[in-house]
Amino acid sequence: MNDMTEMLVCIKCRRGREVPETETRPGQHLYDQLSAMDAPEGVRVRPVECLQNCDFGCTVALRGGNRWTYVFANVDEMSHPEMILDGAARYHATADGLIPWRERPEHFKRNCVARIPPMETE
Amino acid sequence: MNDMTEMLVCIKCRRGREVPETETRPGQHLYDQLSAMDAPEGVRVRPVECLQNCDFGCTVALRGGNRWTYVFANVDEMSHPEMILDGAARYHATADGLIPWRERPEHFKRNCVARIPPMETE
Repeated sequence: MNDMTEMLVCIKCRRGREVPETETRPGQHLYDQLSAMDAPEGVRVRPVECLQNCDFGCTVALRGGNRWTYVFANVDEMSHPEMILDGAARYHATADGLIPWRERPEHFKRNCVARIPPMETE
Repeated sequence: MNDMTEMLVCIKCRRGREVPETETRPGQHLYDQLSAMDAPEGVRVRPVECLQNCDFGCTVALRGGNRWTYVFANVDEMSHPEMILDGAARYHATADGLIPWRERPEHFKRNCVARIPPMETE
């Protein structure tokens, strides 16, 4: 199985607010920041149109390999990209997606919207 | 690809409240109700330990085939099972998981916590 980690970034996010058509949305800003940085080994940043967590954005999801998928809310496009990439590296280092609690970024502890188990291989 | 739809039901859900050890949790109740009913064709109900949407439970997720995964919150174990199964049937009838808005159960419209795109087949 492909063991890559995907970091999905909602680029349509307006954080529940009005954003004029001419302005870049917070979600797009976040994606631009993340994709301008060096992604951790094994992690691919991918833009997605709406993860439907609109009122609690920005939103990213981590998934891949045989790991649980995690969705994280309230991501700040300016101050959080480094933390998010660090978290993605820690996630990728696990076999099941469960970052040990003490290593888990504080933001991940408090802003998990949902998690979804890996597909069973039957 | 396996086209089955999985309905994941969080059986640990306490809906953010205290539940005495001796009492059945709301999530377990919900799963018991759902699995006692006839599942729509192509839909399999599967218990999961914690979808981590604890304060807004009960929680179910729908996924399978090449569909978007959807996570729904605020599911009531007593009054919602029939609606949830109907929604699962409508979900399964789609190729991409996007139930047409006018056919979508009202509860699905208002209680989607997150959605996640299908894995890209590359």
